Parts: sequence; structure tokens; C-alpha cells
Amino acid sequence: MSGNSFGQLFKITTCGESHGGAVGVIVDGCPAGIKITTEEIQAELDRRKPGQSAITTPRSETDTIHVLSGVFEGKTTGTPILMLAYNKDQRSADYDHLKNIFRPSHADFTYLMKYGMRDYRGSGRASARETLARVAAGAIAKKFLQQELGVEIISFVEQVGPIKAQIDHTKVTAADVEANIIRCPDQTIAKEMISLVEEVRDDGDSIGGVIKCVLRNVPVGLGEPVFDRFHADLAKAMVSINAVKGFEIGSGFAGVELRGSVHNDPFVLVEGDIRTETNHAGGVLGGITSGEDIYFRVAFKSVSTISKPQKTLDVDYNEIDLEAYGRHDPCVLPRAVPVVDAMAALVIIDHYLRHKSYSNI
Amino acid sequence: MSGNSFGQLFKITTCGESHGGAVGVIVDGCPAGIKITTEEIQAELDRRKPGQSAITTPRSETDTIHVLSGVFEGKTTGTPILMLAYNKDQRSADYDHLKNIFRPSHADFTYLMKYGMRDYRGSGRASARETLARVAAGAIAKKFLQQELGVEIISFVEQVGPIKAQIDHTKVTAADVEANIIRCPDQTIAKEMISLVEEVRDDGDSIGGVIKCVLRNVPVGLGEPVFDRFHADLAKAMVSINAVKGFEIGSGFAGVELRGSVHNDPFVLVEGDIRTETNHAGGVLGGITSGEDIYFRVAFKSVSTISKPQKTLDVDYNEIDLEAYGRHDPCVLPRAVPVVDAMAALVIIDHYLRHKSYSNI
Amino acid sequence: MSGNSFGQLFKITTCGESHGGAVGVIVDGCPAGIKITTEEIQAELDRRKPGQSAITTPRSETDTIHVLSGVFEGKTTGTPILMLAYNKDQRSADYDHLKNIFRPSHADFTYLMKYGMRDYRGSGRASARETLARVAAGAIAKKFLQQELGVEIISFVEQVGPIKAQIDHTKVTAADVEANIIRCPDQTIAKEMISLVEEVRDDGDSIGGVIKCVLRNVPVGLGEPVFDRFHADLAKAMVSINAVKGFEIGSGFAGVELRGSVHNDPFVLVEGDIRTETNHAGGVLGGITSGEDIYFRVAFKSVSTISKPQKTLDVDYNEIDLEAYGRHDPCVLPRAVPVVDAMAALVIIDHYLRHKSYSNI
Amino acid sequence: MSGNSFGQLFKITTCGESHGGAVGVIVDGCPAGIKITTEEIQAELDRRKPGQSAITTPRSETDTIHVLSGVFEGKTTGTPILMLAYNKDQRSADYDHLKNIFRPSHADFTYLMKYGMRDYRGSGRASARETLARVAAGAIAKKFLQQELGVEIISFVEQVGPIKAQIDHTKVTAADVEANIIRCPDQTIAKEMISLVEEVRDDGDSIGGVIKCVLRNVPVGLGEPVFDRFHADLAKAMVSINAVKGFEIGSGFAGVELRGSVHNDPFVLVEGDIRTETNHAGGVLGGITSGEDIYFRVAFKSVSTISKPQKTLDVDYNEIDLEAYGRHDPCVLPRAVPVVDAMAALVIIDHYLRHKSYSNI
Repeated sequence: MSGNSFGQLFKITTCGESHGGAVGVIVDGCPAGIKITTEEIQAELDRRKPGQSAITTPRSETDTIHVLSGVFEGKTTGTPILMLAYNKDQRSADYDHLKNIFRPSHADFTYLMKYGMRDYRGSGRASARETLARVAAGAIAKKFLQQELGVEIISFVEQVGPIKAQIDHTKVTAADVEANIIRCPDQTIAKEMISLVEEVRDDGDSIGGVIKCVLRNVPVGLGEPVFDRFHADLAKAMVSINAVKGFEIGSGFAGVELRGSVHNDPFVLVEGDIRTETNHAGGVLGGITSGEDIYFRVAFKSVSTISKPQKTLDVDYNEIDLEAYGRHDPCVLPRAVPVVDAMAALVIIDHYLRHKSYSNI
Repeated sequence: MSGNSFGQLFKITTCGESHGGAVGVIVDGCPAGIKITTEEIQAELDRRKPGQSAITTPRSETDTIHVLSGVFEGKTTGTPILMLAYNKDQRSADYDHLKNIFRPSHADFTYLMKYGMRDYRGSGRASARETLARVAAGAIAKKFLQQELGVEIISFVEQVGPIKAQIDHTKVTAADVEANIIRCPDQTIAKEMISLVEEVRDDGDSIGGVIKCVLRNVPVGLGEPVFDRFHADLAKAMVSINAVKGFEIGSGFAGVELRGSVHNDPFVLVEGDIRTETNHAGGVLGGITSGEDIYFRVAFKSVSTISKPQKTLDVDYNEIDLEAYGRHDPCVLPRAVPVVDAMAALVIIDHYLRHKSYSNI
Repeated sequence: MSGNSFGQLFKITTCGESHGGAVGVIVDGCPAGIKITTEEIQAELDRRKPGQSAITTPRSETDTIHVLSGVFEGKTTGTPILMLAYNKDQRSADYDHLKNIFRPSHADFTYLMKYGMRDYRGSGRASARETLARVAAGAIAKKFLQQELGVEIISFVEQVGPIKAQIDHTKVTAADVEANIIRCPDQTIAKEMISLVEEVRDDGDSIGGVIKCVLRNVPVGLGEPVFDRFHADLAKAMVSINAVKGFEIGSGFAGVELRGSVHNDPFVLVEGDIRTETNHAGGVLGGITSGEDIYFRVAFKSVSTISKPQKTLDVDYNEIDLEAYGRHDPCVLPRAVPVVDAMAALVIIDHYLRHKSYSNI
Repeated sequence: MSGNSFGQLFKITTCGESHGGAVGVIVDGCPAGIKITTEEIQAELDRRKPGQSAITTPRSETDTIHVLSGVFEGKTTGTPILMLAYNKDQRSADYDHLKNIFRPSHADFTYLMKYGMRDYRGSGRASARETLARVAAGAIAKKFLQQELGVEIISFVEQVGPIKAQIDHTKVTAADVEANIIRCPDQTIAKEMISLVEEVRDDGDSIGGVIKCVLRNVPVGLGEPVFDRFHADLAKAMVSINAVKGFEIGSGFAGVELRGSVHNDPFVLVEGDIRTETNHAGGVLGGITSGEDIYFRVAFKSVSTISKPQKTLDVDYNEIDLEAYGRHDPCVLPRAVPVVDAMAALVIIDHYLRHKSYSNI
């Protein structure tokens, strides 16, 4: 039990159900003295919030963040930071007819089996609404990393359904990503992706995709072998996001075909610094950051909620024709971009603090 | 720091360098009363040990396991179990010439940057030799899971370089896997794989591949959302293994192209039990095991040690022509199979104990 | 950092400053299905709240608890429980003149040294107001322990200043404790204690004392040697409470004078059960509960805030004559009783879950 | 479960039974580059080893320490350090007659209840022999603290049975402590104590006492409120030692009688530094070290093993006359002194690393 915390030193604990009183997070272990405003946190949340465009769920939540502790006179104090977004659009009654039904590919069945009961309103704790708490915590981590270390974290949509963009991740900017509602930095492919999502939406269906993320200027030396390797914690962070089915770093699955003589990244001098000529490793050697760009890909399956009729079972083992229900995102990718950013930030800051604990970084 | 432990309740802490006194592990939190013999643990280690076939490294280690605490009269006692394999073939002098060199794609550079020093003998702590400690711990976990719960864990080589086997993971047996030295259950493809590895070996090169793993009879209800989802911990466990660059579960990366109406797994009654018609989820819903087979794939890059000459740098920033060095596995996959098994067992038993702590499983 | 959590499986994380937005707690790892009402939690908080009697601080806070997640239809759901009490009586301006002063025996100096800044309003995070979060979490633990296991937790004031009550802890009832405002079950001595506290209060001073606690019906077998011994975790729990300077269990400090032949507790049969004839051990053998009553004593020093003038320094190293300030408890003991109860409940439930994880308790 | 680790960043995990293969420890999270020799570690162990004087147990163990990993060329490498002492004097057969007996005040009963079985040889895991692992780990911590920070850790015997020494802890030196076999720095009282222990030994009995410890030059700012207060972790560390029944810091239990106006420690300037005039706090304010000496007392009960006949029960509920058995320390205090030192060192270094993780200490 107690699986709602992430991080060892910069530790977050999230709480809240989709239709309970609030979704929130306590950040414990945040260094004191970080300048942070509610507006900066809200800005990240706004990238994740529902209803931000025509291709996201119409659920109406402003996701207004409230900072209730741990920040004083515009700075973090070193004490735990509580942040909350109260749930507004709680239309719980909407969910009464789903009370006893196991929706396909949702967690209704497993939550009931595990806990012997479940909050059936809008998926309860299993709702991706929980990720807003991660984004709020990640906003503080991002601020620290950018301000203190110049770290840059850029996630973007690389693939939607079968549509793949060919993008040089070393060149992508935050502005490129935010230039369109699908958050793909290739503006031409982005339009195709948007069209596909619209088609899927109009068809009452959903579609998956891939988010790629690049981390720049992460200090050399982060990661704690042998288990808490930097990329092992990244993997866990990413796979813990709703709908994620895969993670790969550097050369990933495709790279297994390369022989060592090709895959190895030779060390070379670049402007007097030790660098690698290629970066198949993805910025991590032996589980420790090397100073090269860290890049990885995250696979998101299609959202389980669809408007098409489906067959399934209820708690009494009856076969059910499940009609259209709820409100849903036809494609979760654009809203998942800030979540990937946040989780990456949380991994970096936690490993930064861990490394700093015994080194003179 | 202190990243050498895995698991919350069944917690292992490994230690040891490639050429130090010993490689070992303390297993803390093992239930009392599990019948286990040194032979059973040794049997798992023998699947991992070097020199077991013509396609593994010729380093000569028997990897004999010693159980020094926590087992009494053939049973675990509930106290910490210390297991050690003393290093025999320590030819440390072999490594003197590598003392100041950053071997490409090895962790020499990052370890030195991180710790300010490093044990340069045979990669030191970064050596995959550490995984024998995981296998020893995993052997106890496997025994418990099999004996108490009937859990079956079967990993196998699915791909070597570009050679992919098409294997129905629901049908693979342990005997199929052990029937050849590459550990691919398709005996025909296995021969092709072996030929490729031999060719790569003779060429002084190395090659990667993919291991697939299926977990059967894992109890329903394991996994602790929202961060410690069952498959998030699997991802971390797998990505923490040397040379791993990717992890995917269920439909994985390929599945992102499927629409929700296709990807969703409808619940159906099978012989009176609630099951799913398809299993794109890979046995996990909302981070909790569903009772369906859990299956996942793990990408291993080619081993960094090769016998071909390479260019690189030394600690004084000199360009170096690195000649053939050390002894190496041309393909780590067959020896990694028991490591994947072990890590899977460790994830299952840890989540089983976590779930049991508050339920009547 | 991140020292705001307590417990391994039933894990609480508290947050909030004395004069911030709220004081709160997330309880993660609470078993599902526990019946709990807001009223039951509030009842425990009311025993701790300020202004409850003439001998407690007049700060006016209702400490109304809000449950914002993790409880659905009157039962815990197994997901994290967020509970908050918003701060009402925030008169922060009262503290402006203390902004730069290191009050004697307060944490002003050490917080500033540690974090480089501090929330100076009413001691900020160092305020004992934080303990309301512990009491809220403890209320749920107590309910579970009582309902599921019949555990009884009774703390009471044994000593105030030099006034010591001679109390047979095996006979004390909750009603005895609640029968007077000092919470000492000896009603005669209680009056003396109250008189002393009134005198101290009128003198603008403060006074310490000792709380004793007895735990009945705790299951045999709780405690995880060698470090997480049951009483070691009790010790930490108690010493983590504001103003605590000492902890002893069983025969404690006085018992060191007894020889083994006297101190040893012989095993005897009592109504067919294995019991001990004496209980110098205090209910714990080898760090594991024995089934006998667990009893321990906790020393509370006098509160640092007093109304008498004191000499001290400010942040600029100036000597300061510190006049009367703030509102304070002349004696924290009666309000600390429910805090000791709560921390004891948290230790028991955590160890119960830990033990249950691998046993058939 | 898994209660055999101590520390968050400098984490030790101990293992081993009294009469198993070895007693050992893995230290994970030790900073790299600490110069340490086996001899330095052995020197601490020699202070703890049996048979060191006429008033300790005659069990014959050299407690020779072996360092099997994590140290290379005389320095720690940042990887886990495995240290072992193999058990030599295992005369297990000596214990056969105790196999089914619950020795009074030993952990035989609770271990059997907890685990359903037990290693009955010499108390198994419950033996104080485990503390040698703590001393080995503590030796490294002490070396680091002394070398890097000038921290001084001095424990000494203050009381044996009813004999109490009046010692100014601010003046005690390590040499004073080591000047006699009871480890009491008052050489006159020490003789009385030794005589008492000899008398107790000759009588086949045992006796308890109190160890006091002072920590000097601990940096200001260590301790992580609200739960991981510096002294709360000290309390846990001390109470986790075999036979400990109490812990108090600063003014402790006696101090509860002092009024705030007397107990408060005013801040004063001493040679330009902010100090406190008195130190009732014992060097900790709000759970954070203040820079003043930290001092605390630890109560040890008499050892449970005695040579006098006792009545007790066996596993079949039979009443048993237990004759003299085993070999024992008549008074554990002198051998416990290095254990208290070690645990104190472990608390300091862990909190030092925790604080360093986010500060510029």
C-alpha cells in the first residue's frame, strides 16, 4: 500500500478522486528559497486542463490551483507545500448508471477486486485527473531546475495513430511545441494529426500516440546505480502515467539491431569538453547522466472511454450493452505533454538532490 | 545515494564489484518458512553464469552461492538472508591498461564524474556481474511464488539483432526455453540466432535483442496506484538491468495505432469467471493486475565491450586507439533471461506482500 | 529533507504552518472499507483544540476538519485521504515584531540557520499546531484498531511539574482521563495539578510534565527487528512530538538498578495462555509485542512561550529585552494527551500492516 | 517486514544470526573518497568484542572484520560496502536443550509467535551479536565525521545498578573513557562499578545501567522536522539497541519540573557567535541541531541471560526449571559504549547528507 508518493528527496504525495472534494499534492523536500508564484504553477496546469481546445474533453474545470502551505512571501520555505484544485464540475449523478458496470479497459474491475469497493464517479482515483497534481508539483521542480541549473525539458507529440513526424529532437523549442493544439513541433504533420483526432472524435472513438521528450543541460553524474539508475526512474515515472504502455531511451527497441561497433558512442573532444560523437545511449551511461541530451519516447494507448457501444459485464456477471457515456478526450496526447514534462522534472530534481547529498556538484 | 536496494517489503540490497572480494545480496523481508535449498538457488545462477556455452563470455567463474544467514534447517527464518558468490577469476592486472581510459559506451566516464574515482577492474560496480545477486534473490522469490501461489514466470529470447521469432507467448514452456543455448523457444529460429551470434563473436563484435516475458497466475489486485503501478515497477525493474534501453507491456508501442474501439478488451465470462476477450492491456488495468497473463518486452542493446579497435579518450583528454580488451559476451540475451525472470519475481512478490498487508488475499 | 512523513505502510504526510492557509495531512495506505465519519475525527481533534478549558491557550480555532478525498459513502476507499483544517485566527500581524528575534528555546534560530529563511508567524511549521494533523490521521487508525482488533489506547497525565500521581495503568479507563481538564485519572491529584497550572498561568510562566500511555490488546508479534523494533518506532513517534525530551518503556530508567534475576519476567500459564508473571519489559520482547500491556512514559518540557520578560538576541546579533508576546498554553500536557494517543495508534497500525504482509495474523 | 535497515541516505542493512555463518552489514550511500583501513574498523570492533576483560562474556570470538566490496585502494568508492565477521565459536549444540524453552525476558517466545519458527542457537537474530555490524558501519561514519567535520562522539558509562557517577559531560575525553574496563570516566567510581559487576557476575546474575553520550561540533541545521527530528532519530537509534528501555535528551525526565522561565535557554553572544547561555535543550531546537553540545542518556536493563535457576514454560506449555545456561555478560554497559557511539555516528552522517542535499552546508 501507500503507493501515492514519488521521489526520495523531492517527494510528492498526490491525492484526490475525479469527483471528490479536490485533487491535491504535498511536495515534501523542496529546497527553501525558490521563487515561485501561483501564476507560474497555473500556467503549467493550463496546458493540461480540459476544454483547452476543440480536440480535448469538454469537461469544464478551471483547475485553479491553491497553495496552502510551504510558500511564504513568494518563496518556498523548505516545509511541505500543499497545493489543491477543488473539483467544480462534479456531475456525479452522471455516473450512477455506471456504478455496477465494468467498463472495458478501465480500472473498474481491478479497483473493485483490490479494495472491495470503489468510488465509481468518473473513474475515481484511477482518473487521469490525478495528473494535475503531478503537473503542479512538476512546475516547482521545473522552476528550480531552470533557474538553478539551466535545465530545459521539452516534450512533444511525435506520433498520433499511424501518423509519425520525423523530428530532430535536438532542435525543438518550447515555442514549436505550443504553436499548435496537438503539440507536435512539425506544423505540417500537426495539421494531419489534428484532422485525424477530429475524425476519431466525430466517430466517437479514441486514438493513441507517442510523446518524445528531450532533457537538455542535465548535470553530469545524476543517477544512483544499480537500481535507481537515472533512466530506470524515468521509466517508472513515465509508465506510471495513465494509458502509458511503453518507454524507450536512446536507441530503444530499434537499436537492438545495431552491432556494438556501430552502437557504441566514441568519446571525442568538442571545444575542449569530453563528449560523445553519437548519442545512441540517450544521455545515460551505466545509469548515470553523461552530459549529453537525454531523450526518450513514451507510448500512450488510445483512451478507454469511447462513445461507441460496447459489450461488457456488470458486477453480477450479466452481459451488458454499454452505450455512449461520459465525456472524453479523443486523444490524450496533447494534454499528456505537460504531464511528461512534469514527471521528467521530478526525476531530475530528485536525482539532483540525491547526488548533491554526497558530492560537491 | 543508496540506490542499491529494490523492493519495499521484499527488499533486496546488492553489493560487490566485478573484481572485488565478492558479489552479494541481503534479502530483507522474506517471509519465514519458505523451503529453499542452496541447490535451488544455484540452479538459477547456473543459467546466468559465464562460460555456460560457446556463445557466452569465457570468463571462468563458478558463481558458487553461499547462504550465510536467514536460512535455518532448510527454511527461511524471516530474518535477512545474506548470499554471496566470491570472485575467483579476478585477473585484475588485465585491467591496468584500461585504468585511465574511457571505454566507449561504458560507465567509466560517468562513474569517474560522479564519484571522483572508480574501481576500474572489469567495470567495477557497473559490471553486469552484479546481476548474479539479483538472480540469487529472485530464486527465493520464484520458489515462494510458485509454491504458494502457482505463479509461473517465463522469459525467452524473441529477437537477436534483426532475427525475430513469432512466438505465441501463451504457449511457451520453461522446457522450450531451455532447449537451446540462445533460449529462444522457436527451435528453428534459435539456430539462426545462434549462427548470427557466432558470426558476431568471430567478428569480435556484439549484438542486441529483445527478451519477452510472460507471467501466469499472478493474483488479481496487485499494484499500488498511482505511482507504484504494477507495470511501472516492472518497467523500473527491467530498465535497471544492464544494457536495457526499452520496456513495453501489452500492446506497447505498436498498439498506439489502434483505436479505442479496437484496443479495448471487453469483459466476458469464461467458465464462470470474469475475463477479457482480448488482452491488449497485458494483464494490468489501472496499474493493477487483472488476472490475465502479464506479458512485456525488454530491449537490450549490444554489449559495449567488443574486440574491434575503437577510438576514444583517456582521463587526460588524449585520443586513444583502443585495442581488443577483456572477455565479453557477443550477445548478452541468453544470460539475461534468468535476470529478467528474477526481476519479475521480485516485483511480483513485493507487490503481493504489499497487497496482502491490508487485504485478505 | 522530506521528513514530514511517518509510517511505512500506513503512511501519513503532514503539512501546514501555524498561520498559513491550512494544516493538513494525507494518509496513504489506509485499508479500504473502514467506516469513519467526520464527527469521529472531529471528536479527537476537539480533545486537542485550543481554548477547550481555562488552562489552555485562548487562541480561537475551531479546528474544523474537512475530508477531501479517500472516503466515499462513509467508508475509506483505499486511496489517499486528505484532511484539512483551515486556519481561521491568523492574526499574523501580531508576529511582525518577532520577525527578527530569536525567541529563547524556540526554533526560530535553527529554522533560519537550516533553511536560510523562515515563516515567522506563530512559529510557522515548528508550531505544535501541526499536531492536529497527526490527531486527525490517528483518529482513523484508532477506529480501525478498535473495530478490527479491539485495541485500546489510553494516555493520561501522570505528572505536572513536581506533582506526581501514583496510578495503576492497568486500571485506567478513558472516562477516568476525560473526567477533568488536566486529563489525570486520579481526580484528587488532578485538582492539585490544575491549581499548579493556574498558578503558573497567572504568573505568565509555563510548566512541563509526564504523560503515561498504556496499549491494551495489541496483537502478539508486531515489530520488525532489528531496527524497526516496536518500541524503537514508539520512541521515535513520541520524541517527534513538540516539547518531548524523553521516552521510557516498561521499567525504564528506574529499572536499570534491578538485577536480571529480579527484572526478568517469568513465563507462566494464565487461563491456558502463555503470559508473563511480571511485566518489566513493558509488553515488548526483542522488539516484538508479547501480548502483555504495552506501557511507556513521555517527558514534556515546559512550553517555551512565556509572558515573562526574557533576554535574547535578534538576527543582527543585538541583545534584546523580549516582552510578553503571543498566546500560550501554560502547560501543554492536557492537549498533548490525544497527540500521544494518535502517535501510538499510528505506530500500532503501521506495524500491524507490516506484520500482516507476510503472516496470517 | 524488512526492518533491518537504518538511515535514509547513509543506509545500513545488517544481517546474521548469533550462530549462523556470519554477521554482516551492507553500507549503501557512503560518500566516495573516504580513507578507511580495515584496522580502523577493527579498532572499533575490538571495543565491542566479547572476552575483552574479566567483566565481559567469555564467548571466544575475534570478530575479525572482512571488507568485501565498496573500498578500493584504501578509499570508499561510493558503491555499497559489505563487511562481514564470520562466526567462529558456534558451539550450536550447546543450545539444543534450549530449543523448546521460552527463556524469561528473551525473545524466544515473540520470535516464535511472529515467524512461526526460530533459530534457537544463542538467541539467533535477537542476539546482541548483531550490534557488531552496527559498529563496523559506524566506524566508517565516525571516520568521515571526524575527518570532514571535526565531529567528536563520546559515550561513557554513567551508572551501573545504583552506582551513579557525577560527570561533567562537557569535559570528558575518549581517553578518560578507555582508561578502565567499565568505561566510566570517573576513575574512582569506575572501580566501584567494576566491583559491583564482579559481585553480580560471581552471583550468576546481571545488572543494568545508563550510558551518556555527548556529540560535539555537530553542524548547525541537521534534523528534518516534523517527524525526522534529529533527536527523534537518535531516540529510535538508541532504543533499537538490545536491552535499551529509555532515552532522554537534554534536561530529560528531570527537566519537566522546571518552569519555562528557568528551562528556556537564552541566546547570548560568545566570542561573536550566537550561542545559548544554558543548554537544557541538549543541542536541539525544534528538532534541528543548534550548534551546542548534544547530550543524551540511554537506559540499559540487566541482561536477560543469568546463571541462576529460573522458572518458565516450554513450547508445549510445560512448566520448566531452567538451570544455568550459556555464557553471558554480567553487565552489557562497557561493550554497549561503542554501539551507542556507532548509532550516534550513523544518525549524524545520515542527517548531514540529508541536509547537504538541498543546502550549501
